[in-house]
Order: sequence, then C-alpha cells, then structure tokens
Amino acid sequence: MPSIYKRRVQFAETDMAGQVHFSVFFRYMEEAEHAIWRKAGMRIAAEGREHQWPRISAQCDFKSRLRVDDEFEVRTEMAKVTNRTIQWAHTLTIGDRLVAQGSVTCVCVKLQADGTFTAVPMPQDILDKLKSAVRTD
Amino acid sequence: MPSIYKRRVQFAETDMAGQVHFSVFFRYMEEAEHAIWRKAGMRIAAEGREHQWPRISAQCDFKSRLRVDDEFEVRTEMAKVTNRTIQWAHTLTIGDRLVAQGSVTCVCVKLQADGTFTAVPMPQDILDKLKSAVRTD
Amino acid sequence: MPSIYKRRVQFAETDMAGQVHFSVFFRYMEEAEHAIWRKAGMRIAAEGREHQWPRISAQCDFKSRLRVDDEFEVRTEMAKVTNRTIQWAHTLTIGDRLVAQGSVTCVCVKLQADGTFTAVPMPQDILDKLKSAVRTD
Amino acid sequence: MPSIYKRRVQFAETDMAGQVHFSVFFRYMEEAEHAIWRKAGMRIAAEGREHQWPRISAQCDFKSRLRVDDEFEVRTEMAKVTNRTIQWAHTLTIGDRLVAQGSVTCVCVKLQADGTFTAVPMPQDILDKLKSAVRTD
Repeated sequence: MPSIYKRRVQFAETDMAGQVHFSVFFRYMEEAEHAIWRKAGMRIAAEGREHQWPRISAQCDFKSRLRVDDEFEVRTEMAKVTNRTIQWAHTLTIGDRLVAQGSVTCVCVKLQADGTFTAVPMPQDILDKLKSAVRTD
Repeated sequence: MPSIYKRRVQFAETDMAGQVHFSVFFRYMEEAEHAIWRKAGMRIAAEGREHQWPRISAQCDFKSRLRVDDEFEVRTEMAKVTNRTIQWAHTLTIGDRLVAQGSVTCVCVKLQADGTFTAVPMPQDILDKLKSAVRTD
Repeated sequence: MPSIYKRRVQFAETDMAGQVHFSVFFRYMEEAEHAIWRKAGMRIAAEGREHQWPRISAQCDFKSRLRVDDEFEVRTEMAKVTNRTIQWAHTLTIGDRLVAQGSVTCVCVKLQADGTFTAVPMPQDILDKLKSAVRTD
Repeated sequence: MPSIYKRRVQFAETDMAGQVHFSVFFRYMEEAEHAIWRKAGMRIAAEGREHQWPRISAQCDFKSRLRVDDEFEVRTEMAKVTNRTIQWAHTLTIGDRLVAQGSVTCVCVKLQADGTFTAVPMPQDILDKLKSAVRTD
C-alpha cells in the first residue's frame, strides 16, 4: 500500500500559463518522499548525519493541469531498490483524475576524508524503516 | 485576534547557507494571506474574477534562522486598510522564538477595456468577509 | 550542431546540500529551449498567440554537482519530432565535465472555444524556424 | 555611479497573473549584489570563507509589471554602511520605466566555536573592494 501525501497548490507555484510550472512537480515528489522519512522517524536532511541521499535521476509525465488552490494527493511507492539506490515512484491525482506520474532515484553516499562523496551500501535499518513507513500508511 | 497558518519548511526552500532563503519568507506570508481568503469563503486568484490584488509593497525583518523540517506559525493581522489597499502584517514564530516580521500591501484593481489595470475602491463585502475571517480564527 | 546556452548558477538556486537543487535543472533546460525560440525570432510564451506548448514529459540524469557561481553550458538538440510534439535533448557541462543530461517533450496545443486545449499538428513554419535556429548556432 | 546588472525575465519566474511573482524581485536584487562581489574579485558565498553575510531586512515597492522575456536593469548602490552592516539599494527599470525600488540589508557574521553566528565588524579591505566595484561600473 502506498504512502499518501496531501498538498494544496500555492499561488507562487503557478506560471503565466495558469497552471503549476512543470519543475514544481519534482518538488512535490520530493516533499512526498521526505514525508515518508519523517513517518519512519528519520530526517533525510538532518545535519551531521553520516549518509546523504543525492538524486541521480528524475522523470515525470504530465497528464493533466494542476491549478491554484487544487488539493491533490501524491501516492508514493518504492519502485526499485538496489544495495545503493532507491527509486521512488509517485502518482499525483485529484480524486479520480490522474495529474502526473514520475519517479526519482536517490543514491546513498558517504562523505570521504578528502571532501568527495562515494556511493556506499545502504544501511539495512534505514531501508527497513523506510519500507515499513511506506507500507503502514 | 490574528489568523494562524501552520507550515513546515521543505528541503527545496533551503539554500547553501543551510537555512530558508530570504525570498521564500515572502511566499510564506502570501500563503498565510491566501489561507485567510479561503477561510472567508473566497479565492483571491480565481480565474474570471472581477478584481485582482497585486502587491505594491513588501517588507520583512529576519530575526532568526528557519531550517529544514522546522514547523513554524504565521500570525496574520490586517495592519492598515484604505479604501483601495490592505496591508497585511505577518509574524513568523517557532514556539516562543521570533523568526521574522513582515508586511505585504495589496491594492484592489480592475481590468479595463484597454487591457490595463486601474486601482478601484475595494468592494465592502469582500473587506467584511476578510475582516471576520481574520477575527474568528 | 547543437544550440548553446550559457548560464551562471545563482545563490538562490542552491539548497542546503550546497549544490543546485535537482528541480532547478529543469528550469535551466527550459531557459535553453526558450533561448532557441528567441533566436528563431519567436517567443514561445507571447500573449495572444494561437498555439501553446505545454510540457508532457521531462527527464534528467544528474551526473555531477553544480555549485554556486559555476558557469555552465546547456547544449540543446531536437531529439525527436512528431507532427504534434518536439523532444528537446539537453546536455549540461562545465568544460569537459558532464553535469547532467535530460530531455523535455512539448506538445503543440490550441485553445478551443470551450476553454480546453487540444493537441494539433505543429505549424510547419514554426518547426522550420526552430530547426534552423538550432543548426545555425 | 551605481553598478548595473542586466537580466531577462524567464518563463518560470512568472505566475498565473501573467507577471513576475513579487518574491522573485528579491532574487533579482540578490543577483545584482552578488555580481558586485564578483566584480570586486570576491565571492560572497565561497565555502570555507571566514565571514558570512545573512540578510536581516529586505523591502521592495513594486511600481509596474515585469513580464516574460522583458529585459531589465538593476542599478545598485550602497545606501548605508555601518561597521557591521551594508544596506544595498536597488532600482529596477526597463528603459525609462520604473519597475521596482527596494533594499536589502546584510550583516557580517562569523561562525563561533559553538556553531552559532555572531555579528562582527566588517573587514575594511572587503568593504573597500565592494565600494570600488560599485563606483567603477
């Protein structure tokens, strides 16, 4: 069962075409993912944490218009997990209407002594917590 | 009694200094104002509406840092009303800590036949509804 | 030969991870595309124009970090053209370093009498102008 | 003589009212200020630098509409300098038309051992470089 994140479109998120700018959909998907981290009792972006989770890939198909004040839902699932990456799949809807479908892939990295990042295997306990946060919604 | 709007800081609203970018505070203040319009049973940005409400002035003092995941409140009051303008005063806080204080002034305009906007007196019923939405929070 | 758009990263485009937020890459790709429209003597977003060009799909792979003040290039090509859509392919680089590769697909639509949009065949002269703007860079 | 920063309005900076969102003007003013730092041979946001320059106050009066593709200028002056703060005054124009007038005040801070920031006197050489960068434009 996917996790559900509810959101209302804000005025500043629209563009002169009278709808949400397409780049903003990627922010919505990120907000939905971060809500899952919080539900799992964690914060993806806490300072001083050992691992970071940069995005390596993102994609979205825009199916219908999202307008100011619209209340929509983002349903999020773990689409694909490797030992270093998680691909989150997001579906945006308003009631029965499909608004957009997209995915964002993050990689687990660790800061090295020389200031660069190296991809590392995901800690199993983090993955377990995220999996159950998605399931128990 | 002021209207209260609650919000959580999202990751994309931060900058490389590790805090919310100062321009984003103006978005938060606008969101708080638009929430009052909805509470009053109206939508400030509905298409086809007779009046529009462009901002003519905005100001903010930044008092302390706002960081990712922070849950803050915006308390909004009508600071000053003329027959054409409303100045909204906003105070952002986290618990007892003052985060920012600002104000945004809007003017009531009407689209003219030649495509320009002219400032016009605010309809009394709109003002009344906004006033009671702020009060009854 | 691809069209080239040069840009500098602005402070407000970074996030607390110290790099450009991934959603901003989609803005950069759009800016590069709109520069091609201007080079072709047209404006994609002029008011009152007959056709509009909403995005139906966007995708990006993030290869390396983009940081404040970085000067980067976006090289843009027409990857795929159908009679109703254009897929623009964008490559972001700093010197020899690959920063990101992405694509954005737009569809040509026309406003109908009932206020909805319908996908329509692209006017050949618009397509011709865009093609030569990309080539002659 | 003020420093001049030239800029074109991008599509993503507009909102559904068909003009640049008011919060974006504060980004433009910041870009103009940062251009002065670069002209002075410095980078305001370089990592590892000793001082940081958070904004403590910002204000803007919006005089006329700024629309997609508009090419505008930001003229920037040092309006007021104290030993810890600089107030930058910005005027946005398109040809003879006044678009907006605003100001942003920054304070010079230093990271303390306990992770907090303390306001400190501005290094004289930084101030001197900024002053001559503004003048020699």
